[in-house]
Amino acid sequence: MTSPSISEVLISEVGPRDGLQSVKATMPTADKRRWLDALVASGLREIEVCSFVPPHLMPQMADASEVVHHALSHAGVAVLALVPNLKGAEAALTAGVHKLTLPVSVSRAHSLANVRQTPDDMVAVLRRVAALRDERFPGVGIEAGLSTAFGCTLQGVVPEDEVIRLAVACAEAGANEVGLSDTTGMANPAQTRRLFQRLRAELGDKAGSAHMHNTRGLGLANCLAAYDVGVRVFDGSQGGLGGCPHAPGASGNVVTEDLVFMFESMGVHTGVNLEKLLAARAPLQAGLPGEPLYGMVPEAGLPLGWTQPGAAHV
Amino acid sequence: MTSPSISEVLISEVGPRDGLQSVKATMPTADKRRWLDALVASGLREIEVCSFVPPHLMPQMADASEVVHHALSHAGVAVLALVPNLKGAEAALTAGVHKLTLPVSVSRAHSLANVRQTPDDMVAVLRRVAALRDERFPGVGIEAGLSTAFGCTLQGVVPEDEVIRLAVACAEAGANEVGLSDTTGMANPAQTRRLFQRLRAELGDKAGSAHMHNTRGLGLANCLAAYDVGVRVFDGSQGGLGGCPHAPGASGNVVTEDLVFMFESMGVHTGVNLEKLLAARAPLQAGLPGEPLYGMVPEAGLPLGWTQPGAAHV
Repeated sequence: MTSPSISEVLISEVGPRDGLQSVKATMPTADKRRWLDALVASGLREIEVCSFVPPHLMPQMADASEVVHHALSHAGVAVLALVPNLKGAEAALTAGVHKLTLPVSVSRAHSLANVRQTPDDMVAVLRRVAALRDERFPGVGIEAGLSTAFGCTLQGVVPEDEVIRLAVACAEAGANEVGLSDTTGMANPAQTRRLFQRLRAELGDKAGSAHMHNTRGLGLANCLAAYDVGVRVFDGSQGGLGGCPHAPGASGNVVTEDLVFMFESMGVHTGVNLEKLLAARAPLQAGLPGEPLYGMVPEAGLPLGWTQPGAAHV
Repeated sequence: MTSPSISEVLISEVGPRDGLQSVKATMPTADKRRWLDALVASGLREIEVCSFVPPHLMPQMADASEVVHHALSHAGVAVLALVPNLKGAEAALTAGVHKLTLPVSVSRAHSLANVRQTPDDMVAVLRRVAALRDERFPGVGIEAGLSTAFGCTLQGVVPEDEVIRLAVACAEAGANEVGLSDTTGMANPAQTRRLFQRLRAELGDKAGSAHMHNTRGLGLANCLAAYDVGVRVFDGSQGGLGGCPHAPGASGNVVTEDLVFMFESMGVHTGVNLEKLLAARAPLQAGLPGEPLYGMVPEAGLPLGWTQPGAAHV
């Protein structure tokens, strides 16, 4: 976990990866570039721009290397990519990303269904990825994202001890950060506080981001709960794109716009200019015509008299 | 404020008043009865069932006395009505309500626009209502609901000192409880904590409920923030009905179903059976055909393996 001051958080935008791989349409590369440029212009300093996966399985990400290349042209932005295996990691490292995200599902049932490997098999993959990084790409970060950390649609309850055991295993295998993901929208604020408190107690500076979903409306409450126990890095997705929505209107990922609004309203600096972030919805929509975008702040508009405490710094 | 144990909250359902007076259609009295019966069956112990206002201004509430009469047939349910003035209070008291809610807007601009009286004029009204209560209806509660307590769409920022000054004035004028309302959806969790902390410090047991809106997505985060500083009574509206939505899809009032889900998931007992509460949407929808109902839990469904900690008590 990066450690900004108490009144600062880092918003990690995952829409270009998590969002774009969840929709049916493939956004053209030129549109991805324009959207990324707008996201960067809003002040976002960390963006998960793509995943390195077989193009026949996920054609939306076939241009991953090109997208990374473009993102790297923006100085001061940490460029992340998701990789599910060693092959993807090698491609991403070769493309020049600053950080890899490797998903490790805590639920055995979910892990087997998704990647045909057990959670501990994935820790072994992580160890090999870390060895490759150490050998040929020193300085690149590796984040393990523990999916289904708060519950699983296949196996139901996910034991908290198992989450922590796997988090420790990931850190020992070479992850620089271990984050927790509410993949299924089952987290609640009390559980979020408990788990992140334990994660921070066990991992210290390696305790990573909160990746919360809004499936059942608790996304921001859970982010607040995580903030309360010291989490300072939060994933969001512009327009709530992606994150396996279960139902129409029920967004998956926490909407970045609403997340930034919450923190900035509280006086917690995000470094993101909300008006510019709202403006970035236009290139996103242009690249995905007809795709529904979510967000309460975008729908209601900013309140009268609302001034962004951090805007002067952006 | 009632004072249940640390792991209990009281959910005050305001849909039959706040919701039904905000929609264009008038729900027939027989449908109101069926909906109220279903709300009571879910375990709700406090319901704001109507407002006593001139029927030509608000035909949706023309059957207020009949609705109160029906609600009173349910033992163990606190029956509330909103009253804007002494005349409404007398009618509500005569009808036999257990508690009156009197709205007092902290924003002078909002107060003048809404009731053509200043906030302090409304405190004087409250004093007359309390005198009437003391004289002829002892034992009936009076709650002052401080609207625009977190910001105003007309005047913008509402000074926190002014909120507290008015809250103290309301308590001194005879209110048994003083709650804070985020009428305009401008509250944030930090402000919510500050204001309710100050309210409780000033008013002690007379500090009342949190009436939060979800206009910008922060409704549940704000309820969590209020809970964290000791608030134990929360207003919600089934289906998010009412509360002046600013935009399509942007609900006003916090959705009771999502609110109950949050607390029950955290292990905080509400006394409300969530499945029965979800079932109460059917008579609501039957009485308001075509009216959009909101709610993330209703859309996504309950998580796999989710059991309601408090269900056995309901």
